[in-house]
Amino acid sequence: MEVVNKYVSLKHHVDGYPSESDFELATTPLQPAPGSGEVIVKNLFLSVDPYQLNRMKRYSSSHTAITAASKIEPGQRIDACGVGKVVASGRAELEEGDVVAGLLGWEQYTVVRPGTVLMKVDAKDLPISYYASVLGPSGLTAFAGFYDVCKPKKGEKVFISAASGSVGSLVGQYAKLSGCYVVGCAGSKQKVDLLKGKLGFDDAFNYKEEADLKSALRRYFPEGIDIYFDNVGAAMLEAAVANMNSFGRVAVCGAISEYTNAGERAAPDLIDIIYKRITLRGLLSVDYLHLHEQFSAATSDHLRRGRMIALEDVSVGIESVPTAFVGLFRGDNVGKKLVRVGELEG
Amino acid sequence: MEVVNKYVSLKHHVDGYPSESDFELATTPLQPAPGSGEVIVKNLFLSVDPYQLNRMKRYSSSHTAITAASKIEPGQRIDACGVGKVVASGRAELEEGDVVAGLLGWEQYTVVRPGTVLMKVDAKDLPISYYASVLGPSGLTAFAGFYDVCKPKKGEKVFISAASGSVGSLVGQYAKLSGCYVVGCAGSKQKVDLLKGKLGFDDAFNYKEEADLKSALRRYFPEGIDIYFDNVGAAMLEAAVANMNSFGRVAVCGAISEYTNAGERAAPDLIDIIYKRITLRGLLSVDYLHLHEQFSAATSDHLRRGRMIALEDVSVGIESVPTAFVGLFRGDNVGKKLVRVGELEG
Repeated sequence: MEVVNKYVSLKHHVDGYPSESDFELATTPLQPAPGSGEVIVKNLFLSVDPYQLNRMKRYSSSHTAITAASKIEPGQRIDACGVGKVVASGRAELEEGDVVAGLLGWEQYTVVRPGTVLMKVDAKDLPISYYASVLGPSGLTAFAGFYDVCKPKKGEKVFISAASGSVGSLVGQYAKLSGCYVVGCAGSKQKVDLLKGKLGFDDAFNYKEEADLKSALRRYFPEGIDIYFDNVGAAMLEAAVANMNSFGRVAVCGAISEYTNAGERAAPDLIDIIYKRITLRGLLSVDYLHLHEQFSAATSDHLRRGRMIALEDVSVGIESVPTAFVGLFRGDNVGKKLVRVGELEG
Repeated sequence: MEVVNKYVSLKHHVDGYPSESDFELATTPLQPAPGSGEVIVKNLFLSVDPYQLNRMKRYSSSHTAITAASKIEPGQRIDACGVGKVVASGRAELEEGDVVAGLLGWEQYTVVRPGTVLMKVDAKDLPISYYASVLGPSGLTAFAGFYDVCKPKKGEKVFISAASGSVGSLVGQYAKLSGCYVVGCAGSKQKVDLLKGKLGFDDAFNYKEEADLKSALRRYFPEGIDIYFDNVGAAMLEAAVANMNSFGRVAVCGAISEYTNAGERAAPDLIDIIYKRITLRGLLSVDYLHLHEQFSAATSDHLRRGRMIALEDVSVGIESVPTAFVGLFRGDNVGKKLVRVGELEG
């Protein structure tokens, strides 16, 4: 019996806001038996992340920076992190039925080539979706970005943009666990309530209701900001820098408001950066694989003890990937956006 | 006999480009005998630096950052680093005739209050002007900014703006001594020739002759920039970030092209900063006093052995301070701008 693999691909490069019509669903027959060293994975949860937009552009300086951010050509399958079940294994250390996390793709099945890391996951410990969200690259980004780049001290004042998003929601929780004062911003009342309620932020605000971001931050941080975890760039970064304290640190994790608009830029005041000796640092989770074990152990423990919450926003079916992705840029998602494309059983 | 002290003061706050007419020369009688713990210093060499412009503004976020950058009010004397000779001492460790370096002022004599650091200088070792230039705060800024912020490795590619200026000319020499490939930019042919000739830069260019800074830097750094020592900000910072390699470091030391124009801003591409994991860090020499001894010993040694050159641009007479200062923003100075306001002998 021939197995058919449905996958999402680009119709054309995307510059600017993406829309559902930029994508198409295609099918390809799947080889039932893996080649030498290959593993066939039935995908269960796929990660949908804003950075993929940079890969879809005709040109972006990100294309040559790291392999994981290489340019996506129209018609190609699109690799993406996820969790799946091994259905056929050409690797000695994996067998049929194993649940694995790693670089899969926006498709129902992924043929994983030799050399690509697949991490075996204990499906009985924590929900397997966690390995594509809080325990996946978004989690490592939050952990490494907060602890390694921001170097928090107890009592410091932390500001997080896109705070209900995949990374922001975790940074806020790590910051609270570290004894920091934490304020987040997000784009709806529902998200703001969630930050203050379920996630335990000290405060939160809807940036869409603030005419002047600089004075909004002055209101929320009368003693200034020590750490800014930036997921959006542009005007919010400028406002944060203007409100930072001496020796403030900015983790530049994402710039979602710039991804869709090449003309949108942050122009922070260099006089602030110099006189307040502010550090801005870009980060990618790929540089922190050496922290993975520590991150994973600490975070799993927090989750098991209920000290952290995994905020997931799950759509169902491979067909929903384009809408899930496009929705990231409309602020539709609350927490980590995932698409469930298969069931563990069966 | 009453001694009269001539000093330079502001007529009014300065926003935008400064001009000679913003300043006036005033006189005040000098107390011939120092009060308790005071030291009267006859000033010899005064430092003239771009950052003073920020102090002269009606408002700048720099005013509250550190004491040394506090706002200057019209009519006030203006403190500034320099070298002078003790003419009367209320401190046990200093006596008449000692040459000292520290925070003096744009004036002929400074009454140094108790608690203000005065460093005794060996007037027979190196020219005393050096303690207001290469061995003064500009030198420490260059040393700490290059070694601590930029963390150079042998063979790395270093770009320096305002490279013939007080700090840039030293950073370039430290970088060459560290085995780096060094390119500087400056604003005239004379300065470019000096960088390539006397200072031993690998290459240099006149930024005024480049229509497109981004492609100019691509030409000078076909393998990319690892370290950018920024003294100017604005478009040059954007162009440098666009040409940086992964894990590049930017020392944000000065932003002279922004000091005179609040609307002038650098808006580097955050996609570059994220994907290339670039670090930008603002710095001030006051944070590096713990490195002073190391800096001073190493740099004095380089100077004595002829491995480094002190580039000084000296005007004479307290009356020339306004022109010396205003000239900084016209690019008049070559190297560290000093004003000689007194003679060691007599």
